[in-house]
Amino acid sequence: MTEETNGLETKVENMTTKNLEEDVVNPWEVASSSDKGVDYDKLIKRFGSSKVDEELIKRIENVTGKPAHHFLKRGVFFSQRDMHQILNLVEQKKPFYLYTGRGPSSEAMHLGHLIPFIFTKWLQEAFDVPLVVQLTDDEKFLWKDLTLEEANRLSFENAKDIIALGFDVEKTFIFSDLEYITQSPAFYRNMLRTQKLVTYNQVKGIFGFDDSTCIGKISFPSIQAAPSFSSSFPQIFNNKTNIPCLIPCAIDQDPYFRMTRDVAPRLGYSKPALMHSTFFPALQGAQTKMSASDPNSSIFLTDTDKQIKTKINKYAFSGGGTTVEEHKEKGGNCDVDVSYQYLTFFLEDDNRLEEIRKTYTSGELLTGYLKKELIEILQKIVGEHRQRRSQLTDDIVKQFMTPRKLKFDY
Amino acid sequence: MTEETNGLETKVENMTTKNLEEDVVNPWEVASSSDKGVDYDKLIKRFGSSKVDEELIKRIENVTGKPAHHFLKRGVFFSQRDMHQILNLVEQKKPFYLYTGRGPSSEAMHLGHLIPFIFTKWLQEAFDVPLVVQLTDDEKFLWKDLTLEEANRLSFENAKDIIALGFDVEKTFIFSDLEYITQSPAFYRNMLRTQKLVTYNQVKGIFGFDDSTCIGKISFPSIQAAPSFSSSFPQIFNNKTNIPCLIPCAIDQDPYFRMTRDVAPRLGYSKPALMHSTFFPALQGAQTKMSASDPNSSIFLTDTDKQIKTKINKYAFSGGGTTVEEHKEKGGNCDVDVSYQYLTFFLEDDNRLEEIRKTYTSGELLTGYLKKELIEILQKIVGEHRQRRSQLTDDIVKQFMTPRKLKFDY
Repeated sequence: MTEETNGLETKVENMTTKNLEEDVVNPWEVASSSDKGVDYDKLIKRFGSSKVDEELIKRIENVTGKPAHHFLKRGVFFSQRDMHQILNLVEQKKPFYLYTGRGPSSEAMHLGHLIPFIFTKWLQEAFDVPLVVQLTDDEKFLWKDLTLEEANRLSFENAKDIIALGFDVEKTFIFSDLEYITQSPAFYRNMLRTQKLVTYNQVKGIFGFDDSTCIGKISFPSIQAAPSFSSSFPQIFNNKTNIPCLIPCAIDQDPYFRMTRDVAPRLGYSKPALMHSTFFPALQGAQTKMSASDPNSSIFLTDTDKQIKTKINKYAFSGGGTTVEEHKEKGGNCDVDVSYQYLTFFLEDDNRLEEIRKTYTSGELLTGYLKKELIEILQKIVGEHRQRRSQLTDDIVKQFMTPRKLKFDY
Repeated sequence: MTEETNGLETKVENMTTKNLEEDVVNPWEVASSSDKGVDYDKLIKRFGSSKVDEELIKRIENVTGKPAHHFLKRGVFFSQRDMHQILNLVEQKKPFYLYTGRGPSSEAMHLGHLIPFIFTKWLQEAFDVPLVVQLTDDEKFLWKDLTLEEANRLSFENAKDIIALGFDVEKTFIFSDLEYITQSPAFYRNMLRTQKLVTYNQVKGIFGFDDSTCIGKISFPSIQAAPSFSSSFPQIFNNKTNIPCLIPCAIDQDPYFRMTRDVAPRLGYSKPALMHSTFFPALQGAQTKMSASDPNSSIFLTDTDKQIKTKINKYAFSGGGTTVEEHKEKGGNCDVDVSYQYLTFFLEDDNRLEEIRKTYTSGELLTGYLKKELIEILQKIVGEHRQRRSQLTDDIVKQFMTPRKLKFDY
């Protein structure tokens, strides 16, 4: 393996570069020096992806015959690779599939974790395609102070939160790496094929690994690459090796798929297409993403109504004035107000959102009322989720996680 | 992972050091500048292992109640780690097991490949213990220009050669990595546990990897480490995690097990014990080991009687005089004579070997007669092997390669 084989996409961005003026965005760290958070337009240029523009959104509406999800209209899914090629396939009645995932590092998932899954569910229903969901319990074992047994247990707990969003068991395969790798020769072979084509130099450049990095982390990217190839799921795709894949994920996961897109053509496979989301801000502000390890930075799907109320009122960073008088005079700043940001994710009514934006910006709507509206919406979402999750049996989880054919023929 | 965790054993030898005066001995290269071959006494010092001395050989005879194998008496298995601890276990009626392996890079195995297996079979019968045999088809895919399918096919072909030596199917499990890893959560978990504890720096030092090495090679040592732990075979050891292991192998494989021995105590496992063999010399001389890729350097188990005769007569490096007169006057040099070296491996009769040594050294025995005796012995060994191999059915191979309980209770 010579350096010349290093692909073009991975050359665009070297993750070890931590220019002080640049936002830090990689699978293990997201940090911005601006209180408005990460500059996503700059990120598109750095990563070499494309903007989700009006033209693409209209085309998605035309091809699916459905109004665009508000995550598209509001710029939550703001960046993409090869989405027009996916739409071309659909127009030609050719198949594709969806792949997304989660690193199960905590018992409870938080609201931010739901974003890719909510959008993935919309995509699955709009396009009527199979979905594979990877739970990287092996990754969490390698990166965190977790045993394999605990990481594996968390993957089952997290699967429940994902299933509770309402995915269709006949169209969705959820798998833990620790389980599926030891059941699937096809998946393991794609890991090895990828491992043969990627050098230490390349993962050092893409992921910022160094000489003291353990060898498990160094080879892990091949495991996150493998689900991008339909041949990793012969039971779903009837051994077809070239059914293209679309990956909805947060933008911090892009390094894995830049690497995957470099490797794919050398393996005779299609490059996966991508749709990237922004980060769901922490309660404390948009400089970082939510952290599952800091309970006061996030609303968890296990939080009670009272906890949600307390957390929003106490921790949600406000863009309003410091006094009522100042707020009425100068107005609120929606760009940094975390409660308003949360509403853009979870208040589906465009008119009501616009009304809130206007009256908060003018100073007419006070922070307390804005927070009250958000609290009610979140209590409803989390309460209903808790309800659906509590009805899930181990048997249903097992059904989702059993390697099997789905309700699609190839 | 900090550098302080680098173990003692791996510090003994840095494989990247290629001092011109030192022999090169690592899993991918064996080369000596001396026509007597590798200096094994120096190697023991460099690797930090112990000599197989008279005391150990006598103790093995006492503990097993059997005469020592001629590979022990003649210094073929010349080096060891922790063999006295294995004998202590046996005296205390405590269990251990044997682990050896083969990288299936060619259709046909050659005589040199048989050495560890012949000795392993003797150990298995002398101690009556289980044996696991790893076929590293994944390794051969990563290192050679082989597809996964071809490497996997070769592992089955090589399994036949191993089985044909007469191993007991009730006491022996032979596995291909590509098959067993995707069947065994326990094995994969030990791979990951090892991968978490070993850094790039460490494998760079032990194996001489560099930044252009592919990430598959970098993590591969964890796969060769895993069979050293009884917990990788729960079906054989009834989920017992701390049954010690003895590994008979050629000395070039020691780097893998130095790494394994550093990792083992940090995983709560026993360090594997080892017995190391010298290399079976190439026909052309003892500077290198036989190569499966050069047909004229080796006697293959598929060679016909005629091929064996031609190869020995034509290629076996002679330590005799250049003319009959010179030979009778000056005598032959057994230290460099390849045919004599081969006899030390395959002529079991100590008295006859000593007679040959004396008369060849004195010049009484001519090279042609020495070669004739060797040819007859090899034709018999290879012929009988070919016969036994031809009788093996796919079903028998499948039995050996099915994960299952063996005829031992734990």
